[in-house]
Amino acid sequence: LTSVLLNNLRVVLVAARNPLNIGAAARAMSNFGALRLRVVNPYSIAFREARSAVGAADLLASAEEFATLPGAVADCSLVIGTTALQHRELQHPLHRLEKGAELVRGALESGKVAIVFGSEKRGLSNDDLSHCHWLMRIPTRETHRSMNLGQSVAVCLYELAREGRATTSPEKPLAPSGDLERITQLLVESLKASGYIKRGSEMATEEKLRRLVRRLNLSSEDAEVMQGMLRKIAWKLRKE
Amino acid sequence: LTSVLLNNLRVVLVAARNPLNIGAAARAMSNFGALRLRVVNPYSIAFREARSAVGAADLLASAEEFATLPGAVADCSLVIGTTALQHRELQHPLHRLEKGAELVRGALESGKVAIVFGSEKRGLSNDDLSHCHWLMRIPTRETHRSMNLGQSVAVCLYELAREGRATTSPEKPLAPSGDLERITQLLVESLKASGYIKRGSEMATEEKLRRLVRRLNLSSEDAEVMQGMLRKIAWKLRKE
Repeated sequence: LTSVLLNNLRVVLVAARNPLNIGAAARAMSNFGALRLRVVNPYSIAFREARSAVGAADLLASAEEFATLPGAVADCSLVIGTTALQHRELQHPLHRLEKGAELVRGALESGKVAIVFGSEKRGLSNDDLSHCHWLMRIPTRETHRSMNLGQSVAVCLYELAREGRATTSPEKPLAPSGDLERITQLLVESLKASGYIKRGSEMATEEKLRRLVRRLNLSSEDAEVMQGMLRKIAWKLRKE
Repeated sequence: LTSVLLNNLRVVLVAARNPLNIGAAARAMSNFGALRLRVVNPYSIAFREARSAVGAADLLASAEEFATLPGAVADCSLVIGTTALQHRELQHPLHRLEKGAELVRGALESGKVAIVFGSEKRGLSNDDLSHCHWLMRIPTRETHRSMNLGQSVAVCLYELAREGRATTSPEKPLAPSGDLERITQLLVESLKASGYIKRGSEMATEEKLRRLVRRLNLSSEDAEVMQGMLRKIAWKLRKE
């Protein structure tokens, strides 16, 4: 993987707690040439302490901090959640790392890609996952699935950088997550106005819709058309 | 890699200093099903403290301790040293991990194989390396080669366990065209009602929408949800 492509990659750590893990993640990123770290709502002391990670001081100093996951991935056209579980109930496509990395390499050709790692204790929440296009898991043993955070970052980046021709035909540039989120919100608004979303079930429905919108694999162009249509519909429903 | 083959693998840590690293190595071993750890001359306090590694207590309890590297690899028919450097002067064959792991998999079929990791500070000494058949390196960046011990164990074992052919979870059945057409028509109706589609441009817009809906690659399930939502929106707009 060339450094130009890796420059499109964002490693996103959500609510990481342990400075050693943040440091280890940063070191692995530096080892494999993925230099753009984003942290969401880290325990701030942990984040500051992590800065001593061997050889990764620059990378940590230039890390970007965000209050929320949607903020951290707004400019990314592909957002991938990492998980140790199967999450069958979520209806998210789940790829093994070997296949997932191949898809990521393809997507890096046309836009920014975020790989998102959850906190050490709890991984990514369902809400976090609803911001992802699909999920990726490292093929660990059934009886001991959950990996250490720093190690799973290392393994994911190794597989990404791994040699092995994996060429994919260039796809149309995918829509940035910010656009997908706007589509989701317009849809939520219209569905509330039309009575599809019942009071009390807003949160669950919103999460489902968010996942559905991410499954559509919208190109930038289609996402713009979609926003235009939904804006008009929402406006009309509001006018009543 | 089957557990029978992995049973022939020995992960050997030489003079590891940091209990966290020993613990992390053990955890990664457990994650990937390599359960036989050997430690050479570890700092004994470090070794005892490491035993708390998440999910790897059994593995650490059954680890074998040796005073010297030759003792630790005496029963192994292939001994591989890991290194971040090039060691050109050593005239040892040096393989990238991708190739090295392939050779290891082959050798595990016929006998015990040891993969040897050096201490955090200094790696393997020239004397240690002289006990190895060949060397293996993880393809890290020229400018930041040296990996954390626990992470390099994780990456090596991942590559060993890695599946050649990337398999994906079976895809969901796609929606029949009839459903896609119903979605298209509901969309057209709502967009007319909202004023998005101007009189005179109905045909062209409908065609564009039809193509857009087909590009979404909707699963049967998602197509049904989509129809439900659009039906509700169209009904509400019609009521005005």
